[in-house]
Amino acid sequence: MRPVMIGTEDRRIAAFARALRRSPVQVNAIHEADAELIDLADGSGRLLAVKTDAITEEIETGLYVDAELIGWMAVTSNLSDLAAVGADPVGLVVSLTVPPSIEDGFLERIGRGVAAACEDAGTFVLGGDMNEGRSLVVSASAVGFVPRGAAITRRGARPGDRIYLTGPAGSGSLFALARIENAPCPPYRPAARLGAGRVLRGEANCCIDTSDGVLLALDTLARINEGRRFVLADAFDRILDHRARDVARARRLPPWLMLAGAHGEFELLFTVTPEREASTVGALLAAGLAPACLGDVRTGRGVALRRGDREVQLDTTSIRESAALAGRDPSAYLEALAGIARATEKEIP
Amino acid sequence: MRPVMIGTEDRRIAAFARALRRSPVQVNAIHEADAELIDLADGSGRLLAVKTDAITEEIETGLYVDAELIGWMAVTSNLSDLAAVGADPVGLVVSLTVPPSIEDGFLERIGRGVAAACEDAGTFVLGGDMNEGRSLVVSASAVGFVPRGAAITRRGARPGDRIYLTGPAGSGSLFALARIENAPCPPYRPAARLGAGRVLRGEANCCIDTSDGVLLALDTLARINEGRRFVLADAFDRILDHRARDVARARRLPPWLMLAGAHGEFELLFTVTPEREASTVGALLAAGLAPACLGDVRTGRGVALRRGDREVQLDTTSIRESAALAGRDPSAYLEALAGIARATEKEIP
Repeated sequence: MRPVMIGTEDRRIAAFARALRRSPVQVNAIHEADAELIDLADGSGRLLAVKTDAITEEIETGLYVDAELIGWMAVTSNLSDLAAVGADPVGLVVSLTVPPSIEDGFLERIGRGVAAACEDAGTFVLGGDMNEGRSLVVSASAVGFVPRGAAITRRGARPGDRIYLTGPAGSGSLFALARIENAPCPPYRPAARLGAGRVLRGEANCCIDTSDGVLLALDTLARINEGRRFVLADAFDRILDHRARDVARARRLPPWLMLAGAHGEFELLFTVTPEREASTVGALLAAGLAPACLGDVRTGRGVALRRGDREVQLDTTSIRESAALAGRDPSAYLEALAGIARATEKEIP
Repeated sequence: MRPVMIGTEDRRIAAFARALRRSPVQVNAIHEADAELIDLADGSGRLLAVKTDAITEEIETGLYVDAELIGWMAVTSNLSDLAAVGADPVGLVVSLTVPPSIEDGFLERIGRGVAAACEDAGTFVLGGDMNEGRSLVVSASAVGFVPRGAAITRRGARPGDRIYLTGPAGSGSLFALARIENAPCPPYRPAARLGAGRVLRGEANCCIDTSDGVLLALDTLARINEGRRFVLADAFDRILDHRARDVARARRLPPWLMLAGAHGEFELLFTVTPEREASTVGALLAAGLAPACLGDVRTGRGVALRRGDREVQLDTTSIRESAALAGRDPSAYLEALAGIARATEKEIP
């Protein structure tokens, strides 16, 4: 299967991966699942799920400064990907690169964040590795299992599917906006949606977490699910975190722009056949979640916004490209997003 | 079980780990196995083995400059630890932190080294993550399985055990010495001893890889196996890589000093009951390896050198502490080792 190429990072990943051969027992193609799925064929009826993710750029760009948040996110970003394939975690290993200037107390607080996220998810750090280096890197890898046949990938959206998010959108964008503007940060401690993942396995047609925000998650699904168009309903009052809705109103921004930030809320975004919608939503509600319907899958391509009886294409490619600015020049980033919003809104009568 | 504390790195690991809770299904205590062992109790009769290790310091100190070697070692250091517990690898995930100044061609060569090490071991990269950062970090995590009851840890050495290495010693020290002295590097591309690990599971009483060299491996075993003394026979002509032997002779260094370097040869160091010695060695020979007997386990403590009918204690604590100098001040490091050698030899009549 042809990998889906998106921007500089993917070009560099492709350079690194050029000589690598794929495991014959790997179930998912490149980019096609939030975590790697391996068929062990060991009679246990389960697939192995593995994922690695590092907190580096968030530290270097100043997005994360609190040690406990750094630790929490190193765990949660990985567990969230296990959740998106429907896996139950066994545990994590943590690899730290630490400059000599970092004090033991800071490391201890990172550890407290790691421990809190593990406890919240009912899982454990199994081991780790610590090295000295010029910049702080907290890299973690998570291992889990998912019943064979119930694993969810990013591929499988069908026309008519309903698009859902496991909770309100926009908390990640709000947090990043506050950091950029040096304003007091709203609480941000997203929980990995492992319970939701358990509900969705065998139910959802495809799933991805919103670690990079809702619109980039939809953009990824649209690239992988060829011939499918992801149409957002004009129901952002219902979709958005109430604080994100208030910010959009106060600043006279189109509410969908609160979904465009590349720092996400770590909810699961999934599609489900209409016949299974009620039971899936019911099970999510019973699990204590607040699922919100984002819209529908149609035939076509890309991501669109419904306004009345019109559909306006969202330029998710430009939104993705602008995200590369986020760390380097945050004001230029916000201006780029605002420009995309103005151009989009101009098309709507 | 009380963790074994050794130096600054362990103090910092302890600070990070203070709040962490241990998984109730983890088989090994902290520091007591080269890879983490998890009892899945899933009826498959196997333990999960997980390990993470990063190549950072080797890059920052200039020990590794060749991109393919960096990639090779990121894989091999992890697979070597799976080998030491007797596990068969399923695959690895690779987490890269890459400065913008690194060119795509360099990344591609790292990938070639990763691919070559995977091919050599018959395993695969399952997935990965790439971030931008100030320093190059190649972190990998390996996952594998070992039959329950056959897993090997660092604990279990018995008085009377024979100490073995799965191949000649000293190639890692030689490589590091050449880098420090800016001399042409001897070939250094250690293979993870997965085949040896398969032979040793259920046979060896304890096992550790020599990623940090033979003497530090023995020092670790001596700290974990309380009441055990690891005695090296005066048979270094047989133990040493012939090039390492030649260097020791030419420089009039005691040959055991070639085992003191903290950059190892990635062989497996294990102990075995005398009754199983012949069959184990035979199986290793049949697997194409060249095992060498290093000495015996006695009651007592620490690591010692046998000379005639005397035993001279090796100051492995000082050897370990001097290793902290290796990256920062290589000449001071070599001088510290030479000083330890002189002090030790003085005790021998």
